[in-house]
Amino acid sequence: MNEENLRKLLQKLQQGGCEVEEAVQAIAAGERDGLSYACLDHQRQQRTGRPEIVFGEGKTPAQLVAIFSAMLARDGMVMATRVSPEKAELVTAAHPEVVYYADAMMLVSKEPQEKQNGGVIKIISAGTSDLHVAEEARVTAWGLGNKVDLINDIGVAGIHRMVHRLAEIRKADVLIVVAGMEGALPSVVAGLVSAPVIALPTSVGYGTGLGGVAALLGMLNSCAPGLGVVNIDNGFGAGCLADAILKVGEKKK
Amino acid sequence: MNEENLRKLLQKLQQGGCEVEEAVQAIAAGERDGLSYACLDHQRQQRTGRPEIVFGEGKTPAQLVAIFSAMLARDGMVMATRVSPEKAELVTAAHPEVVYYADAMMLVSKEPQEKQNGGVIKIISAGTSDLHVAEEARVTAWGLGNKVDLINDIGVAGIHRMVHRLAEIRKADVLIVVAGMEGALPSVVAGLVSAPVIALPTSVGYGTGLGGVAALLGMLNSCAPGLGVVNIDNGFGAGCLADAILKVGEKKK
Amino acid sequence: MNEENLRKLLQKLQQGGCEVEEAVQAIAAGERDGLSYACLDHQRQQRTGRPEIVFGEGKTPAQLVAIFSAMLARDGMVMATRVSPEKAELVTAAHPEVVYYADAMMLVSKEPQEKQNGGVIKIISAGTSDLHVAEEARVTAWGLGNKVDLINDIGVAGIHRMVHRLAEIRKADVLIVVAGMEGALPSVVAGLVSAPVIALPTSVGYGTGLGGVAALLGMLNSCAPGLGVVNIDNGFGAGCLADAILKVGEKKK
Amino acid sequence: MNEENLRKLLQKLQQGGCEVEEAVQAIAAGERDGLSYACLDHQRQQRTGRPEIVFGEGKTPAQLVAIFSAMLARDGMVMATRVSPEKAELVTAAHPEVVYYADAMMLVSKEPQEKQNGGVIKIISAGTSDLHVAEEARVTAWGLGNKVDLINDIGVAGIHRMVHRLAEIRKADVLIVVAGMEGALPSVVAGLVSAPVIALPTSVGYGTGLGGVAALLGMLNSCAPGLGVVNIDNGFGAGCLADAILKVGEKKK
Amino acid sequence: MNEENLRKLLQKLQQGGCEVEEAVQAIAAGERDGLSYACLDHQRQQRTGRPEIVFGEGKTPAQLVAIFSAMLARDGMVMATRVSPEKAELVTAAHPEVVYYADAMMLVSKEPQEKQNGGVIKIISAGTSDLHVAEEARVTAWGLGNKVDLINDIGVAGIHRMVHRLAEIRKADVLIVVAGMEGALPSVVAGLVSAPVIALPTSVGYGTGLGGVAALLGMLNSCAPGLGVVNIDNGFGAGCLADAILKVGEKKK
Amino acid sequence: MNEENLRKLLQKLQQGGCEVEEAVQAIAAGERDGLSYACLDHQRQQRTGRPEIVFGEGKTPAQLVAIFSAMLARDGMVMATRVSPEKAELVTAAHPEVVYYADAMMLVSKEPQEKQNGGVIKIISAGTSDLHVAEEARVTAWGLGNKVDLINDIGVAGIHRMVHRLAEIRKADVLIVVAGMEGALPSVVAGLVSAPVIALPTSVGYGTGLGGVAALLGMLNSCAPGLGVVNIDNGFGAGCLADAILKVGEKKK
Amino acid sequence: MNEENLRKLLQKLQQGGCEVEEAVQAIAAGERDGLSYACLDHQRQQRTGRPEIVFGEGKTPAQLVAIFSAMLARDGMVMATRVSPEKAELVTAAHPEVVYYADAMMLVSKEPQEKQNGGVIKIISAGTSDLHVAEEARVTAWGLGNKVDLINDIGVAGIHRMVHRLAEIRKADVLIVVAGMEGALPSVVAGLVSAPVIALPTSVGYGTGLGGVAALLGMLNSCAPGLGVVNIDNGFGAGCLADAILKVGEKKK
Amino acid sequence: MNEENLRKLLQKLQQGGCEVEEAVQAIAAGERDGLSYACLDHQRQQRTGRPEIVFGEGKTPAQLVAIFSAMLARDGMVMATRVSPEKAELVTAAHPEVVYYADAMMLVSKEPQEKQNGGVIKIISAGTSDLHVAEEARVTAWGLGNKVDLINDIGVAGIHRMVHRLAEIRKADVLIVVAGMEGALPSVVAGLVSAPVIALPTSVGYGTGLGGVAALLGMLNSCAPGLGVVNIDNGFGAGCLADAILKVGEKKK
Repeated sequence: MNEENLRKLLQKLQQGGCEVEEAVQAIAAGERDGLSYACLDHQRQQRTGRPEIVFGEGKTPAQLVAIFSAMLARDGMVMATRVSPEKAELVTAAHPEVVYYADAMMLVSKEPQEKQNGGVIKIISAGTSDLHVAEEARVTAWGLGNKVDLINDIGVAGIHRMVHRLAEIRKADVLIVVAGMEGALPSVVAGLVSAPVIALPTSVGYGTGLGGVAALLGMLNSCAPGLGVVNIDNGFGAGCLADAILKVGEKKK
Repeated sequence: MNEENLRKLLQKLQQGGCEVEEAVQAIAAGERDGLSYACLDHQRQQRTGRPEIVFGEGKTPAQLVAIFSAMLARDGMVMATRVSPEKAELVTAAHPEVVYYADAMMLVSKEPQEKQNGGVIKIISAGTSDLHVAEEARVTAWGLGNKVDLINDIGVAGIHRMVHRLAEIRKADVLIVVAGMEGALPSVVAGLVSAPVIALPTSVGYGTGLGGVAALLGMLNSCAPGLGVVNIDNGFGAGCLADAILKVGEKKK
Repeated sequence: MNEENLRKLLQKLQQGGCEVEEAVQAIAAGERDGLSYACLDHQRQQRTGRPEIVFGEGKTPAQLVAIFSAMLARDGMVMATRVSPEKAELVTAAHPEVVYYADAMMLVSKEPQEKQNGGVIKIISAGTSDLHVAEEARVTAWGLGNKVDLINDIGVAGIHRMVHRLAEIRKADVLIVVAGMEGALPSVVAGLVSAPVIALPTSVGYGTGLGGVAALLGMLNSCAPGLGVVNIDNGFGAGCLADAILKVGEKKK
Repeated sequence: MNEENLRKLLQKLQQGGCEVEEAVQAIAAGERDGLSYACLDHQRQQRTGRPEIVFGEGKTPAQLVAIFSAMLARDGMVMATRVSPEKAELVTAAHPEVVYYADAMMLVSKEPQEKQNGGVIKIISAGTSDLHVAEEARVTAWGLGNKVDLINDIGVAGIHRMVHRLAEIRKADVLIVVAGMEGALPSVVAGLVSAPVIALPTSVGYGTGLGGVAALLGMLNSCAPGLGVVNIDNGFGAGCLADAILKVGEKKK
Repeated sequence: MNEENLRKLLQKLQQGGCEVEEAVQAIAAGERDGLSYACLDHQRQQRTGRPEIVFGEGKTPAQLVAIFSAMLARDGMVMATRVSPEKAELVTAAHPEVVYYADAMMLVSKEPQEKQNGGVIKIISAGTSDLHVAEEARVTAWGLGNKVDLINDIGVAGIHRMVHRLAEIRKADVLIVVAGMEGALPSVVAGLVSAPVIALPTSVGYGTGLGGVAALLGMLNSCAPGLGVVNIDNGFGAGCLADAILKVGEKKK
Repeated sequence: MNEENLRKLLQKLQQGGCEVEEAVQAIAAGERDGLSYACLDHQRQQRTGRPEIVFGEGKTPAQLVAIFSAMLARDGMVMATRVSPEKAELVTAAHPEVVYYADAMMLVSKEPQEKQNGGVIKIISAGTSDLHVAEEARVTAWGLGNKVDLINDIGVAGIHRMVHRLAEIRKADVLIVVAGMEGALPSVVAGLVSAPVIALPTSVGYGTGLGGVAALLGMLNSCAPGLGVVNIDNGFGAGCLADAILKVGEKKK
Repeated sequence: MNEENLRKLLQKLQQGGCEVEEAVQAIAAGERDGLSYACLDHQRQQRTGRPEIVFGEGKTPAQLVAIFSAMLARDGMVMATRVSPEKAELVTAAHPEVVYYADAMMLVSKEPQEKQNGGVIKIISAGTSDLHVAEEARVTAWGLGNKVDLINDIGVAGIHRMVHRLAEIRKADVLIVVAGMEGALPSVVAGLVSAPVIALPTSVGYGTGLGGVAALLGMLNSCAPGLGVVNIDNGFGAGCLADAILKVGEKKK
Repeated sequence: MNEENLRKLLQKLQQGGCEVEEAVQAIAAGERDGLSYACLDHQRQQRTGRPEIVFGEGKTPAQLVAIFSAMLARDGMVMATRVSPEKAELVTAAHPEVVYYADAMMLVSKEPQEKQNGGVIKIISAGTSDLHVAEEARVTAWGLGNKVDLINDIGVAGIHRMVHRLAEIRKADVLIVVAGMEGALPSVVAGLVSAPVIALPTSVGYGTGLGGVAALLGMLNSCAPGLGVVNIDNGFGAGCLADAILKVGEKKK
């Protein structure tokens, strides 16, 4: 029962149009049907501050087109991750306003409006092979209205490359550090900056890389505190977390 | 070589007090001794915004007493994690101003100064068995000058307990959600709030809990975005990450 | 040797039609050939209360057609799981009465007869990607003569969706809760209902999902008791277990 | 806001003691504070049909005594699992009516009332080393008011022992089959009975037994359908699941 | 019902001492009580050719004494593995004829009678740290009446030691090759002999030895065929398998 | 240097045809070139009692044709495992006497000569999906000159099928028991027979079957002694081990 | 800022061409832009003694062509690993001087100049299936200017093959020993030589080979000291390590 | 049979003191007893260039005393690793010339003679908790006659500490880099130096550190080539490998 209906019911009661017991039962029934509107019955954006983002893997092109139709009508802003080029072509044919970001394998329904005075997210990737994952993080965070820079290919095999750009890195409000193989870059970075570091392991590597598990373990066991780790290849999750962190700053202003 | 000394050297050169070659060698030597002051030669607090926190495990009481002596003289604020009661007794005997927080197994040298207008960290734990880990997170974050609340024992086995306190939970600027066993609580919470959620798995459980690995995997695979995960039982890391996230907000003010 | 034949043999002995030693050898031989009829020599349906269900994976279309021919003649009711569309086409061409359920990837030889006054199985799936597995469970349980409802897409990333339908969920006699990724939904549900919950992990996810192992571990380590777990993607096993549980109720009537 | 308070508020509104808008806000606020009473605010026993059972591991004797004091006053029936003999002695000293079942390592506050006409749970254990776990399952299920039989030491190393008692086993309404090492017994039993089988792996074994993981995998991969598996050594969970299954039968009567 | 009793029953029937229906029921009942005598109702020694050997781990001294009392009366020959020195002292005090083999941690009730013209088992261990496991294999096989030699400390770190004794090794009818760490010795031996090789991994090692898993994997992946592997530290199993293999030879004579 | 050449050299020395030092150097050189003929310089068949069997996987058809050409010339009997139908066609085209056994995926150069009075190997497989692996074991053992029987599809899901054929199974001198999924069949069989049992796990299964690891663990942790385990899907290894075991018996005759 | 530029700046200051503050800022800026020249600002070859070697996997042919263009212009010597034949064809079409080594799957821009009086690397592989990995090691080490020999197919299944060539093996300055399956060969070799042994596990094998993990564990747990292990299939890393080790010898001359 | 004895035998033959056939048999017998002296019959020090070093773990004090007695008489130089202080006290009481290095947990029989003009090994450890392992490497390498420096506590959490000492690090001929937790230090160092780097993972850490496996994986997956990895906590192996590498340089001089 939403507030509007509740108000009407109470007015009716006030005006003698129903009995107290009837009203008690009606309100209780409304609650029984769902969670009370006041705490949970919000749309996702109200609950978590983010629009829902569609996970494209395992959905057919037809399903994706239908979801975009429904969500574009309702929300305006729609994004989808893990969309193959073939599926993307079909969706953008049906919805010409939707743009496909091929490196990120993402669809975005319209240019996001960049927040005024928001913080800056910097994404650092260890190698060019990590680029797809870094791009998923970048487009996600940018699509949510944030300013995002990407610094590519400065892994620990030549640590001087990272040190070289340290002044620039230190300007970030939040860092996403992307690495496969041994996953050491986030540890090194986190030891040198004060911003929170989101460690994003990738499945790049072979042999005992175990599809990214070695990188993940490296990040979880970092001797540098101030790191939060997300799932392997989960650029989307890293982008959302960076967005949530920047919102803390915005709320405080 | 810091800027002050460099300036003096160059003035000396300008005034004919030394030769060009001598100056070249002195500057090069200074660089050889350390990283150039401009980018790396800060103390840790300058680099990462946090004092160093001593890892007490595997250190003898004598080593701990000595480290506290040295650091108290230099920094004033000293903290140590994973200190057993036996060791703590010896350290506090030598340094009476140091206080032992038994549940957190931490030593703290003095009451931290709470930041004015800082954000609020809320720590939610799934069960009372997770309390030690939650307390390590709490004392760490509090010792770094943050306001921290702890909400205990509201795990998913009775999800209504968490929903019951949702309004309170939503007031947090950053959340640390602590859980062992199946580690589901952070996912449920992250689906209902807009604040960033730090997921902190504990080794509580048995059998296929695998010492916390089941909880960790649950958190990494969360279908709710906006989660950053730390190592199993790593309350210290979670506290530092929460502190780093709140600093983003402070910088923006 | 079944009871009928035994009776005939003993009558023959009683009437002098054979010698004691001949009878001893015949009975011993009968036992040697198989387990004694009294305890083991039933057909599967008698032993376990369920017809055999064919595992279609790794069988050629020709083998499947032959198996269906043999079993249709003998049992009337035949089901097969994990049958690809290509194989299904060949089997249904040969046996036009057999129907292919594409989402479940199952073949069923005829509409099952729904039990009168039987209990209700409800299957809850966390996401649409888990649908194939949920459907295998649904068709299996339905094919065994049970009433089955399917409630789709109410995972923990938005727990309010599940709470919303709690009254409906509580009407189930047995619940099958299907989830991939972190596998938290069965724990949350089991904490809110009194019916037995069958937890069915799926291989949906990526990275540390480890092909469903993360979901499985989440379910095995559930802090909510009253859960029984089946193998990853094993909708068939979940359907059979639900059927076995409902039979307990039927026996008691 | 519970029904009583809601009724008072609406009477006040009806009698002109407050405005409609005030009442709207009050009701909304009440909902914001907790989940609506109608769907979730039950006691655990109402929600899940089982009293809460205390997990004794990691709790101090003092905590256990206090919990028993509180729960005995409220619920009458209290049980605790994983209580060491030392802790048990202190609890039973404080609460003389509480009995310690040493093999099960459980405390039970009073003899449960056995249900009339309830089903029968049979627990089968593969070896005497599995007895502690089997006993935890037995006392849990018995404490919840069920009739439980225990058949010990009939593992697959001599399968004739199990076959020997098959007629007896087939009389069970629910079976809990306990096994360590290779965990094959539940598969063998499930292929011979129609009752639902709860497979309970134990950590008995060495080497590649991996603390029960080998037994667990054996049970999850059983080629016999109709099995539900619980965590390693989780006799408590198996007992609760058996109880939940028998309730299905009771409801139907 | 054994053949003797069956014969008596049928004679009674033949002589009119009972009715056909009575006899049918009696035979069926006999079968219901156990497996028919013809195929399964043997004692273990008859079924598997080996006396039962008691697994001492997890049994109390009192239980062990009782088991020895019962089995000594019935079988004469009794063995127990994994018996600690403390337990052994109590058992040998109660049964002075029982001897404790401390290196093997085994109890044996009497000197076995060595088979005439039996084959020879040779046990090769890679290092002295593997000796406990090798001894368990040796005493088990010897206790079952076989001739067993033990060649110690000829691991692959100095392969010449093994090659040095190759002529001797080649005289074995069955080989048990014991190794921890990388577990390479069985592969090397199996490439040089024609006898069957039982590979027995031990938990000797550290780090990535993973408690014997590295050695086990080494043996399972051996590029030399003709190897059968047993569980980590399972000297008992290796001894039994060697005994079973030698029996093949004896049967043929 | 073989014995013949050594003899000639020494005769030459005896007859004054060379100097002592020359002979010393020649003998030393011969040893340096290879292992001394007395212990190691045999052909494989002499060393291990088995011809080399070619591992076809990862070899090109051309390589296989060449290897067969070389080995046919030298040994007469040649076998190759893991040969795909495509490769087999090319090899049999080049060497028409070679026969392809498609179920086993093996090439065999000629009918082996069955040993007179040799033992009998029986191969038992749990399910028809295990047939490929069982066939590799069968053709290997048969190709080495043994008598082999195959009993298919008697897994533990209906244990009565195995008990039914127990008398037949007990006639084996060596058993190879093949099973995927939970891998319980070898344990059950080994508890009922006196012959050595070779446990052969297959990768049949899904989910937590982990490509055969669950079956392997089940076999390694068997509570029935007298089992030797080979690698997953390693029918070739099982066949060779069975052959080696039967040779023990033959040697004794 | 390199020493030359620093010198010029200081001369300018000395000669009054700039102010002290300007010089301070210029030097600080130089440091801020990169690491100080004294410790880190070398090219890779200067830092690590090796040219960069391109990792071809996951790069498009166009990217590879571009990288070769850039690096050929700058360095003369360029190598790339893990280049498929298809990509290689496109690169060699664009850069005809580049040669493709198909077995090694590597591109090399020109014949390396073999070092005078350098040491000898010998690469030993256990089986022909390991050849691709061995070849990657060989071409890498050879491309870096070393003398390399390859000894193929002398695995432990017939250890006499290795012993046969021991004199030759002992002439190596550094050994790379390549093995899949159980990975025992490096242990055996390391026990017989004084040269450092680089153990290179391959993913050759099946079942519990776990894609090379079994071989890797075998090498890490070797009971023979003096082994250094590289990642599974990492011929490139082994070649670089061998090169680095030989440089130790060269430096000393 | 060694060369001296062979010579005598041939002289006897030449002088008619024995027959050709007798000599043939004697030579063959000598070869049968061992490997021919020419290739394998060296002492360990001759074979591998290192004295045998005793592994103290799992040996009793009495065994250690006896081993030292035997080896001191024969070799002069004796070392033992993993000796607890209690055992060390007993050995040094019996052999007063033996010195116990407590941090390394090693016994060394006498000061080694440092090689003239040998190379320099530098050992870098990430944290003080890694010191025990670093010390085992240091004493091993020093005991083998090498010059060894130890640089402690310069892990990646503050990478500037390592960069600070880079000039010093670059003077090493061989580096051993010791790290637990995420194990990133060897990668960072290997990217900055030309010397071979031995990566030595330690079991320092908790949670997902998995007893050193995370550090090990980090090192095996290093994106910097030129690394060789040893087992977790295997300081002894690292010391031996460093010694073997330096010998390459020495041979070349």
